[in-house]
Amino acid sequence: MQATAHSRGGEARRELLDVAIDCFARFGYQATSIDRIAREAGVTKGALYYHFKDKADLLFAAVKSRVGQWERRVVGEVRPVPSATARLQQVAQVCLDHATKSNHRRMIITLMVEALDTNAPLSAEFRAMMRRFREFLASLIASGQRHGEFRADVDPAVAAEVYAGAVMGAEIQYYQDPEAISLPATLDAFVDQYVSWLSVGVNHHRSNDSRTRARSGPARRATRS
Amino acid sequence: MQATAHSRGGEARRELLDVAIDCFARFGYQATSIDRIAREAGVTKGALYYHFKDKADLLFAAVKSRVGQWERRVVGEVRPVPSATARLQQVAQVCLDHATKSNHRRMIITLMVEALDTNAPLSAEFRAMMRRFREFLASLIASGQRHGEFRADVDPAVAAEVYAGAVMGAEIQYYQDPEAISLPATLDAFVDQYVSWLSVGVNHHRSNDSRTRARSGPARRATRS
Repeated sequence: MQATAHSRGGEARRELLDVAIDCFARFGYQATSIDRIAREAGVTKGALYYHFKDKADLLFAAVKSRVGQWERRVVGEVRPVPSATARLQQVAQVCLDHATKSNHRRMIITLMVEALDTNAPLSAEFRAMMRRFREFLASLIASGQRHGEFRADVDPAVAAEVYAGAVMGAEIQYYQDPEAISLPATLDAFVDQYVSWLSVGVNHHRSNDSRTRARSGPARRATRS
Repeated sequence: MQATAHSRGGEARRELLDVAIDCFARFGYQATSIDRIAREAGVTKGALYYHFKDKADLLFAAVKSRVGQWERRVVGEVRPVPSATARLQQVAQVCLDHATKSNHRRMIITLMVEALDTNAPLSAEFRAMMRRFREFLASLIASGQRHGEFRADVDPAVAAEVYAGAVMGAEIQYYQDPEAISLPATLDAFVDQYVSWLSVGVNHHRSNDSRTRARSGPARRATRS
């Protein structure tokens, strides 16, 4: 099947976007010029302006693209996992992978905070992203509550805020100080305490189990090696 | 007692710094020019340059001043509190106050993330600040462990990373989306789960107490009103 002009245009746009994302992630948004992106992509500035209005437009498209990828990955990997506890562990695992295996996640988090004061449309996009993430977490927690896995007296929205914040804050500390921070140990300790908190009082037997686990298994994980 | 020329100079410098901090907090660092600070302070640019080399120097001094204030307040308010649990609650309370009662804390957090990629000396200053904060938290936790209040099998350094990250991440969500996020409820729910995690298995009687508490008292607090 031959590619249509439209799909070829879409492909060229995606390739330029990938180059732009790579530049933003390596040099930061401020230090990346349209000239630099065009040079790295091996195209003229005119070709770049054919697809994107300006640098802000490129940034907006870059963020939407990477956020979309991340959301599809979280949903895709977490949905098939059976228990709510295992799903919460899996979300942390996807965050850990994204935080440590490329610099795009770091770019997203730093851009998100920078945009707070400097770029209202981009900040609105990030705000919507965080709301979707918290809604996804709250739906996991509510599902655990419906199935008797989690206590029913915790507000899923507040619990989702705690989770989303703890993961983001752990990541920022890691980006700032990778030598001092063990991100796997921090996320592991957090998810461990989070899940035992959600399981408190649900079922005496299960609760005792989790208390014993917290003293032996996860305690090993919570200790920096 | 008459002020010496030196202390008068120190006072003028502090006043200029306060104006600069106020400008950075209101307009952001990028959008604040030396001209604007001089205008707001009612002095000439020459007077400003007498005390500060450039805008970056002003920012550095502003950050050091506000971080120092915050650290003295945390240490001053937390030291006299008797139990390690109450101290951890008090730290969260100080963070909540700072996050909600002025925009300086928001400025510090956003500058900290922006500096990651753009300002190496400032980033080093923030890295040192976060290390001091985590060491302070780790010393609180270790003290709780020594006194049998907290379980001994958790690494205080990892636990400190979880705490510092959860508070920072909760704040960033609040700055981004103050209408959706209840910062008091989030911090309250976090400290509640954190303290029960640290208390797991320490003492059967106390652990049962905390389980009951988590089902009634803090659960009310964990529910958004």
